[in-house]
Amino acid sequence: MNKDTICALATANGVGALGIIRVSGDDALKVVQKSFPGKNLEKQKSHTIHYGYFMDGEEAIDEVMLSIFLAPKSFTTENSVEIAFHGSPHMGKRILETLTQNGARMAKAGEFTLRAFINGRIDLSQAEAIADVIASENEASRKVAINQLKGGITNEISILRTDLLNFVSLIELELDFAEEDVEFADRSALNGLLDKIELKLDSLIDSFQYGNAIKNGTAVAIIGKPNAGKSTLLNALLKEERAIVSNIAGTTRDTIEEILHIKGHAFRLIDTAGLRDTVDEIEAIGVKKAKEKVENANILVYLADAATEDYSEDIEMIKSLQRDDLKLIICSTKIDEVLPPKYEAIEEIFRNEIAQDFDFIRISAVENQNIQDLKNELSSYVEQLKSQENNVVITNQRHFEALRKSLDATHKVKEAISFQISTELLAYELRNALEHLGEISGEVTNDEVLGNIFSKFCIGK
Amino acid sequence: MNKDTICALATANGVGALGIIRVSGDDALKVVQKSFPGKNLEKQKSHTIHYGYFMDGEEAIDEVMLSIFLAPKSFTTENSVEIAFHGSPHMGKRILETLTQNGARMAKAGEFTLRAFINGRIDLSQAEAIADVIASENEASRKVAINQLKGGITNEISILRTDLLNFVSLIELELDFAEEDVEFADRSALNGLLDKIELKLDSLIDSFQYGNAIKNGTAVAIIGKPNAGKSTLLNALLKEERAIVSNIAGTTRDTIEEILHIKGHAFRLIDTAGLRDTVDEIEAIGVKKAKEKVENANILVYLADAATEDYSEDIEMIKSLQRDDLKLIICSTKIDEVLPPKYEAIEEIFRNEIAQDFDFIRISAVENQNIQDLKNELSSYVEQLKSQENNVVITNQRHFEALRKSLDATHKVKEAISFQISTELLAYELRNALEHLGEISGEVTNDEVLGNIFSKFCIGK
Repeated sequence: MNKDTICALATANGVGALGIIRVSGDDALKVVQKSFPGKNLEKQKSHTIHYGYFMDGEEAIDEVMLSIFLAPKSFTTENSVEIAFHGSPHMGKRILETLTQNGARMAKAGEFTLRAFINGRIDLSQAEAIADVIASENEASRKVAINQLKGGITNEISILRTDLLNFVSLIELELDFAEEDVEFADRSALNGLLDKIELKLDSLIDSFQYGNAIKNGTAVAIIGKPNAGKSTLLNALLKEERAIVSNIAGTTRDTIEEILHIKGHAFRLIDTAGLRDTVDEIEAIGVKKAKEKVENANILVYLADAATEDYSEDIEMIKSLQRDDLKLIICSTKIDEVLPPKYEAIEEIFRNEIAQDFDFIRISAVENQNIQDLKNELSSYVEQLKSQENNVVITNQRHFEALRKSLDATHKVKEAISFQISTELLAYELRNALEHLGEISGEVTNDEVLGNIFSKFCIGK
Repeated sequence: MNKDTICALATANGVGALGIIRVSGDDALKVVQKSFPGKNLEKQKSHTIHYGYFMDGEEAIDEVMLSIFLAPKSFTTENSVEIAFHGSPHMGKRILETLTQNGARMAKAGEFTLRAFINGRIDLSQAEAIADVIASENEASRKVAINQLKGGITNEISILRTDLLNFVSLIELELDFAEEDVEFADRSALNGLLDKIELKLDSLIDSFQYGNAIKNGTAVAIIGKPNAGKSTLLNALLKEERAIVSNIAGTTRDTIEEILHIKGHAFRLIDTAGLRDTVDEIEAIGVKKAKEKVENANILVYLADAATEDYSEDIEMIKSLQRDDLKLIICSTKIDEVLPPKYEAIEEIFRNEIAQDFDFIRISAVENQNIQDLKNELSSYVEQLKSQENNVVITNQRHFEALRKSLDATHKVKEAISFQISTELLAYELRNALEHLGEISGEVTNDEVLGNIFSKFCIGK
């Protein structure tokens, strides 16, 4: 690994009271020293802060505070300096220019974290967790990412690996003594262990559905005939959200999706563009257009106007949109305009016609309580995805795939045992299962995988 | 002054590897301690950094680094903690919520700097300089702001104040012994001192024109008849700029102005909207519209098409736009389409008709060298505003006005001396001059002025 000294802006782009530039590498102190004549940096203790002027030759660039971290007690385990400056983007650029003149080079995306991984301070799943923590936009994603950062996944995996490793050594011992036809590794004990491991792998793999909901949000499509009250509902749902969103400055929003947060989980309202500011969507929504909207949704909220009589079109629409993996919520809207017997009859009509299980909610834009019922229903969808037994949640596609490959290999090991296939194959598949598990923490890895992971980081991390 | 504990995000809004939250106040350590059980913060030395988890009760919110600054060795001179966290906006919000639960309150705009001023760590002109440093978008504004932060203006002013103060005491001594009709203060020495002070004040006041150019940029209007080559020139001028601007992330741009940087100075190209992306402005530019554009300009760049014969309209237009305080640059464009004798003749025509002094530049969009000539000409306008004698540049309207009022008072003192007006009036005007000087550093101030200054700061500074 190249230990040249790298530097980058670590704080968000834009104007702030403070900005932080990170410098890391064997010569980090020497590089910064050239611009900080006021104090001998090499003589300072680790984890100390130093006030002074950052100079370019004779010229004072800014009044700064330097934080010194000496190897190995730094994020990268290398000598590191963090320069806190007055946060104008021009100033950051000016200081970085000077640092590169002093011998540092601009860091690549994720290079600080890559070094932390390469130097053994964190494993790969923790490195990925750092990116997840930074990207977390709600409590659910923050919690899962922090748990991963604290080594949650690594711990689970390493227990499985240790158990498997014991068997691998026994099996390989058998291979060494192949001609003597002995069995060091008890096949039924191995089978028992594999059962235990598969149970764990299954549970981790299952958690990915919840992990995915946390990481990418749950996609909700709101569908209904013209005048069913879609935009009114949307406005009611997003009323509080708007206040929340404006509180979190810097939140960027997809133009065709609105994000709704319920109990710390994100719900992406699909293709609501135009819905929100108009009284209602004017043109009739065709089945084709509705299908497109629902295609990637996890939940379909179907709105049926309580003030109409004929629901045959609605029922037809719902039937054409139904999918096994699509949660269905039917809302009868405008219930303030009709009497209870009417909307009870509506529920009856849908229950008679729609075979799939669904939730039925009576909604009125003027009665906010019913909106809350809908929110609770959305929230319960995510809650029931949560694994009951498992604290660790898989949110990362790469981990998910590694776990599946590992599970696949354990299946093959079991097959090999039951069909008494050669010890070589057994050993091969066992090593396979182990290797895939090792990919998660990065014990087994290659440059391509690393390049892939760290290139998605932001510069400065 | 209320010393309750305040907290705010100090780094720019948005996603970054790191974010910093600043906490300041007598109880800053206690407030943070509630969320940082890992270490006894009260026992730590100033200027030290501590790794651990930031907790909300039993829940780990983030892995953080705390920087501890003990009173009076902090920015505010109060106990302060800076919390470096993984820079997601949600995370920042979550930590701030916990801090307010712990007993801190959200800081108001500029409140940290206000405390630094109130507690005597910096004077008012330095507090203003901090805002200027953060807002600086180019080298010129950065340099001037850093000089002010280092106390440049304060030093100049305090020399003047010390001299004046000596005389004020002598004059007031005279007033105490008024009945005895003695002169403790030598009037001719006072006159000499006032001459010296006025010279200095004049020079500082003069520097404001340059300071203004630094802070707000120099306004340039580009005017010419249709097809004179305005958009071509604009594109040529901004060609490099686009690359520069895209390098400085977070730079926001006024929609109707383009900013051009030449040798570290900003030039605002007035009302170029639509010019840049079209082949040329299509409608004829009327005198009225041209006048509006030129109204707030410092420089008029007038484009005259070298390929045409009749310049009477151009000359008329220029004459109607002329102002004493408007630098005029006439460019004959498209010179690649004509022979030298032609454009020499053009210059002659304008020289004969336009009485005002102007620069004449031959421009061709295909020959970039001439574009550079224009840039040099623009740059020289700012350069000649620079005071030869003075390192200190006034960029602040408030300082400018205080200096003018002080100069006004010294004029009155001199009048009072020459007309042998009462010692009371002399003393009054001398104190006036002193007070206005004191306003700059904040030795004389009031809540309204402070409110005005600090409310313009960003939160977290």
